[in-house]
Amino acid sequence: MRMFKDLLGLEGLSPDEIRHILQTAKPMKEVLLRPVKKLPTLRGKAVYTLFYEASTRTKTSFEMAAKVLGADAVNIGVSQSSVNKGESLLDTAKTLQAMQTDLIIIRHAASGAAGFLARHLEAGVINAGDGQHEHPTQALLDLFTMQEKLGDLRGKKVIIVGDVLHSRVARSNVWGLTKLGAEVVLAGPPTLLPPELSVLGVKLSYDLDRELPGADVVMALRLQLERQQAGLFPSLREYSRSYGLDRARLRATGKETLILHPGPMNRGVEIASDLADGPQGMVEEQVTNGVAVRMAVIYLLMGGTTNVVA
Amino acid sequence: MRMFKDLLGLEGLSPDEIRHILQTAKPMKEVLLRPVKKLPTLRGKAVYTLFYEASTRTKTSFEMAAKVLGADAVNIGVSQSSVNKGESLLDTAKTLQAMQTDLIIIRHAASGAAGFLARHLEAGVINAGDGQHEHPTQALLDLFTMQEKLGDLRGKKVIIVGDVLHSRVARSNVWGLTKLGAEVVLAGPPTLLPPELSVLGVKLSYDLDRELPGADVVMALRLQLERQQAGLFPSLREYSRSYGLDRARLRATGKETLILHPGPMNRGVEIASDLADGPQGMVEEQVTNGVAVRMAVIYLLMGGTTNVVA
Amino acid sequence: MRMFKDLLGLEGLSPDEIRHILQTAKPMKEVLLRPVKKLPTLRGKAVYTLFYEASTRTKTSFEMAAKVLGADAVNIGVSQSSVNKGESLLDTAKTLQAMQTDLIIIRHAASGAAGFLARHLEAGVINAGDGQHEHPTQALLDLFTMQEKLGDLRGKKVIIVGDVLHSRVARSNVWGLTKLGAEVVLAGPPTLLPPELSVLGVKLSYDLDRELPGADVVMALRLQLERQQAGLFPSLREYSRSYGLDRARLRATGKETLILHPGPMNRGVEIASDLADGPQGMVEEQVTNGVAVRMAVIYLLMGGTTNVVA
Repeated sequence: MRMFKDLLGLEGLSPDEIRHILQTAKPMKEVLLRPVKKLPTLRGKAVYTLFYEASTRTKTSFEMAAKVLGADAVNIGVSQSSVNKGESLLDTAKTLQAMQTDLIIIRHAASGAAGFLARHLEAGVINAGDGQHEHPTQALLDLFTMQEKLGDLRGKKVIIVGDVLHSRVARSNVWGLTKLGAEVVLAGPPTLLPPELSVLGVKLSYDLDRELPGADVVMALRLQLERQQAGLFPSLREYSRSYGLDRARLRATGKETLILHPGPMNRGVEIASDLADGPQGMVEEQVTNGVAVRMAVIYLLMGGTTNVVA
Repeated sequence: MRMFKDLLGLEGLSPDEIRHILQTAKPMKEVLLRPVKKLPTLRGKAVYTLFYEASTRTKTSFEMAAKVLGADAVNIGVSQSSVNKGESLLDTAKTLQAMQTDLIIIRHAASGAAGFLARHLEAGVINAGDGQHEHPTQALLDLFTMQEKLGDLRGKKVIIVGDVLHSRVARSNVWGLTKLGAEVVLAGPPTLLPPELSVLGVKLSYDLDRELPGADVVMALRLQLERQQAGLFPSLREYSRSYGLDRARLRATGKETLILHPGPMNRGVEIASDLADGPQGMVEEQVTNGVAVRMAVIYLLMGGTTNVVA
Repeated sequence: MRMFKDLLGLEGLSPDEIRHILQTAKPMKEVLLRPVKKLPTLRGKAVYTLFYEASTRTKTSFEMAAKVLGADAVNIGVSQSSVNKGESLLDTAKTLQAMQTDLIIIRHAASGAAGFLARHLEAGVINAGDGQHEHPTQALLDLFTMQEKLGDLRGKKVIIVGDVLHSRVARSNVWGLTKLGAEVVLAGPPTLLPPELSVLGVKLSYDLDRELPGADVVMALRLQLERQQAGLFPSLREYSRSYGLDRARLRATGKETLILHPGPMNRGVEIASDLADGPQGMVEEQVTNGVAVRMAVIYLLMGGTTNVVA
């Protein structure tokens, strides 16, 4: 009995469903931190990763999560694959399903690619990032990290700063944070802040410094440096002066504000090393929690209902 | 005690040996379709895939087969390997053998590459496609699929249509089908039908429509579109008009003819979607059977003799 | 309780530590040669390979070693990874550590890369080759191979011939061999023999033939053919005439001298096939011993102390 077949985004989940995943991730993290990190739970299950965009951390994190749960993880190397032969995404996915994979974890440049597969497959689908749409497990690990440090997120002030326009991480976090009752501010230069996001009940601001007071969390997004060269924002120096996070600027919050970053970081651009590597920096904690959260999602999609920690 | 050390092609197998593999694939398929698809049979065995040509489905299918049997599967990424350093195929394979791999599954552009390795290695070798020579596990999965639906293949009429000239899939199928007593017709444009195949007791025909009546199976081969550009056949539209499979054309068989395709398909060229996705289309069934047949082959080469299904 | 956290090179190990690793590799080799080569020892441990330089044999050998020990092996495909996104080596490694990997096996073009990581990580680090610095597991497998055939290496004469200048294999072997009391001669053309190595108590010689008498072992290094084109040594024919190993030349040793080569070989350049494939050739034995030695190193770094062979 599966709670749901796929995880495509946080937009479609209820607050209770999100809380249930985060709750399930707690014992998973305990397992992950054990000297012997292996459960027999998903023995004989096959989990395929199908990544059409390069990624170390997300793909490895899913692979690690699957293996700790005892499943077999199979990487479909897309660059070396029949995709080169012009096969459609759906035919590729149906082939994998016919091989009796239980779960396909897909990253694709097209928004909606994961949802498209989910509608056409019986196998479960996890969206590991689709275009500029959603990256739900990243947002779940961010939520888990915040909740672990701050408790209930209701009323907590979270600022997401940077290239919101192109960020599926930001979109998934907006859905997750607002559903859990947090107050969300999106900050960045006008060229990188999509006005339509304000309809979701979040505040948009070009002035990060004015928003900082009272912030419980500041999440820096990764700046795609190649976009800067395309003239989408003025210069790295200018960006860094207005939106780069460092210890001095963060004093304005008046709190021990948590600093999150999805990685990989451009140190000295969107985040200074003193902050990233200091006690407020959550970057490594996020990576650990990422494996735990993905264990929880895989486990739940596979029909897990009983007590995980044997 | 191994039945045989290698699987290089169907040419060298007796009808009984082919039947034995197909028979062994039946319980393997049952295992594959179980909720927990894992056998302890080949625990502590190492199976290496060494693919010099890109492939998703074949490589993944073998990897899946090895893992379901409990073996360790190791992919040798050729593009990133010492092959780049000019090492000979034999030295590479001897190195893998010295690492104590039990089985090497190789795909190579040169006809005879697998046989060459088999003669020089003590480790077992499975030919996963060598040039335009053979691709025996593909033919075995095709035979399995036909037999599962049609029973004994003796006297059954099977048409293989398309680029027979360059197809190792066609060659292996001709061997397998004739050994099991089927009546085989090879159909395609003159430029893609090698006359020498007629010595194997199969019929060659440029007129697909004339051959269709009474056909139990029509197998479309994948058209290598880059060959069309090289002028090897007139035009895709012309090809499709004479040899493309669709529901209207297939009515001529007068039967619920099975439609096979090794994938990936060029939809609308060699096969129409209405047929591929309809009840006669066996494409996904073939993929599932491919894992089962490869489980059987790996199992038998490893010396498996007892009842598989624990 | 770990004997040590990392294996960075043989320079930093005591003779007893080297002997302890070689001793541990013996039962590991027995396990590797069993029909069922699988230990439950490292179940639930994760071993990551992070290779910034192409390699088949070393990476596969480590992967095999980890799997035989029962660990989960995860390959970080660097070419497809966030390294492309400009992330620093340290940030990449800290990310892997945060995923709870127990051991990172790294190959990198920069000398000192492995040591740099080891100082900054809590996870264990194995140097699988760093620039022109060290490649300790290669030297350990060479030592193991010599010791298995010759017994105690004290007083044994070992000639290493070829491109010593660029060879981390030679450097690690010089450390290991001198620590175990062997007499080491480095032979090669003047352009490829770094004079500073003589301070380690080894002899340098441009005249291989003069050194051969009495040699117990001759180890040919791989010639990087692209360097020849850059004019670093006269011509392949000239090189081969002065330093290429063949059966005729080796008669000068007056013994059944062992011939080692780290592979992949340039047959007919640094080594003739009659020698490589003859009874004195240790190339495949070295590969087998490589897995055994890597099992020993992984096992010891993971805290293994008890009797391995269950």
